[in-house]
Amino acid sequence: MSVTAAKGFTAAGIAAGIKENGNPDLALVVNTGPRRAAAGVFTSNRVKAAPVLWSEQVVKGGEVTAVVLNSGGANACTGPKGFQDTHATAERVAEVLGHGAGEVAVASTGLIGVPLPMDKLLPGIGAAAAELSEHGGEKAAIAIKTTDSVHKTAVATGPSGFTVGGMAKGAGMLAPGLATMLVVLTTDADVEPGTLDTALRDATRRTFDRIDSDGCMSTNDTVLLLASGASGTVPEYDEFAEAVRAVCADLARQLIGDAEGASKDIRIEVVHAATEEDAVEVGRSIARNNLLKCAVHGEDPNWGRVLSAIGTTSAAFEPDALDVAINGVWVCRAGSVGEDRELVDMRFREVVITADLAAGDASAVIWTNDLTADYVHENSAYSS
Amino acid sequence: MSVTAAKGFTAAGIAAGIKENGNPDLALVVNTGPRRAAAGVFTSNRVKAAPVLWSEQVVKGGEVTAVVLNSGGANACTGPKGFQDTHATAERVAEVLGHGAGEVAVASTGLIGVPLPMDKLLPGIGAAAAELSEHGGEKAAIAIKTTDSVHKTAVATGPSGFTVGGMAKGAGMLAPGLATMLVVLTTDADVEPGTLDTALRDATRRTFDRIDSDGCMSTNDTVLLLASGASGTVPEYDEFAEAVRAVCADLARQLIGDAEGASKDIRIEVVHAATEEDAVEVGRSIARNNLLKCAVHGEDPNWGRVLSAIGTTSAAFEPDALDVAINGVWVCRAGSVGEDRELVDMRFREVVITADLAAGDASAVIWTNDLTADYVHENSAYSS
Repeated sequence: MSVTAAKGFTAAGIAAGIKENGNPDLALVVNTGPRRAAAGVFTSNRVKAAPVLWSEQVVKGGEVTAVVLNSGGANACTGPKGFQDTHATAERVAEVLGHGAGEVAVASTGLIGVPLPMDKLLPGIGAAAAELSEHGGEKAAIAIKTTDSVHKTAVATGPSGFTVGGMAKGAGMLAPGLATMLVVLTTDADVEPGTLDTALRDATRRTFDRIDSDGCMSTNDTVLLLASGASGTVPEYDEFAEAVRAVCADLARQLIGDAEGASKDIRIEVVHAATEEDAVEVGRSIARNNLLKCAVHGEDPNWGRVLSAIGTTSAAFEPDALDVAINGVWVCRAGSVGEDRELVDMRFREVVITADLAAGDASAVIWTNDLTADYVHENSAYSS
Repeated sequence: MSVTAAKGFTAAGIAAGIKENGNPDLALVVNTGPRRAAAGVFTSNRVKAAPVLWSEQVVKGGEVTAVVLNSGGANACTGPKGFQDTHATAERVAEVLGHGAGEVAVASTGLIGVPLPMDKLLPGIGAAAAELSEHGGEKAAIAIKTTDSVHKTAVATGPSGFTVGGMAKGAGMLAPGLATMLVVLTTDADVEPGTLDTALRDATRRTFDRIDSDGCMSTNDTVLLLASGASGTVPEYDEFAEAVRAVCADLARQLIGDAEGASKDIRIEVVHAATEEDAVEVGRSIARNNLLKCAVHGEDPNWGRVLSAIGTTSAAFEPDALDVAINGVWVCRAGSVGEDRELVDMRFREVVITADLAAGDASAVIWTNDLTADYVHENSAYSS
């Protein structure tokens, strides 16, 4: 599983002492080839962490040999010193592995505005390299956790004989285009960087970009896809893209399932929209409505809050043609009272809200969570 | 105080039985003239309550004789029956007062998607009319409360000899352009409808439109300004507009001070922005960041969350030129670590966050609240 499910990759995860509590905090993923193609997608936040600025440049070259990831510190808003620290991290990895620093991507997650303890991080790189293994994927996934309660991994195989695997972390500041969400995907398919990039952007647009736990866009989001070519398989684009999408969707669902303080996972289906953009805009507006998220927490099928959220968008619709279902019960018909809200059963963790805009044939699914007192406690007590 | 501070107005507030708990729920404000000029500003939510649709039309005529307001039900998303109910309410007021229904504005607040109990509301109108008094302003302000813990009134006088008074309600779904926020302002100045409209839009743009408690735009927001001319004073525009702005700012500050579950009032000052629009966009983005709102609740001067919010905007700025102060301590300088965060004292209810964009000379102030477990409890347990 994880990043070592595909052939041609080794990984490790260790405790370098970056986290004061002694938990694992440093991961290394190495592409052993023969190919070292790569693509990446990064946060659209204009305040970008040093490792994001670095890795964007690395990925532009189309080749990545290793990815080093740390939890316990985001290295964001740390000024010129922060960028020097990222550079030194890449240099140390390059030195230990015998490659160029320009092929080493760096990712960090944790508190913003605090310098990394380089006296712990740099020695940790040697220790992690010594642990590299074709079975190290789980340990790498564990080492990138921050407030995650579980580590997240996924794998898909293509019929033509290749594998796509991956790991992810992210529990808060989770609204990708965005979240302090780190993802590394690996594949042993033999694929050019340009194709990797297209497949990755197609996949993230419809998976990570459609989860929105708390509306807060991170400074550190990074999704990398590395290809080793070790399977010897050159898949058709559609087959490859579908495998990448499946792994991304699986990881995205796991991120929502472990969001900070959440007790409900909310699947928002927007149907009969005029365009896919309209569907996404409406879905995201619903996903960011704190009042609705509180209502779902209280198992209250409060469809009025859904309509008030739809009403703030510029999507094509007529207010008196809107239908809304909660867990399959059409509690709102034609913009007004529909079926009896007492029929809605909201006891289970997954809640499905369907908004029918009656304006066309496009649709989209956005995932979010409820808003809970636990989210408030976690984010008022814990600096992250 | 309240809507009867200005000469030429009577008001009343009674318990009509719309609220099941027996609290006051019906208010009437009557302009006794000699002039009956009016202007109004309404929610920009495209899903508009029936009374908003009605009152928008009434105000277009430039004359309003009476305003009837109920709490205990928003009459939003109630279909054609909801509009008939609003119409019947205006007709009953007209009948009781001996005016035309086309001069009666209607406003409602409470739960969305539930029809109003017209068997309670219509008889209540006669009862309220019987209580109309030049001292009824406080009772009217009390009758429009929903989750408000206190009623809100304000008054300002112009040196040339006129008065502007007002009342407001609103505690949740509070992000005007927007909130389930009802405001009635009255003045005894002798002013034309067109001037009232200009002064009211100027004032709301810089007051109610710049408070954002929970990012949730209501279906029912209504701000009305009625002029009786009873003072006989025809003020200069600037003097009049300043009095209207002062009353709006006072009421807006009271709304933030009583927001659902809040323990902190947060004043966000955006300075050195390239344009006022940029300053407002940045302020609103900070105001809607749930993670920052949680941090303020925990008295944690988490400036990284301020920067991550600024980074999501399209305003002009360079990330490495951003300065942020919390309660006067510049914890972020040049986009990185500034003064010691331990110096920040956040024990008091009011917290001031200053964001310096270093991009120009424009500025704006946006008000919001912290996000608390009490907000979650109130909005998961209470259908509103």
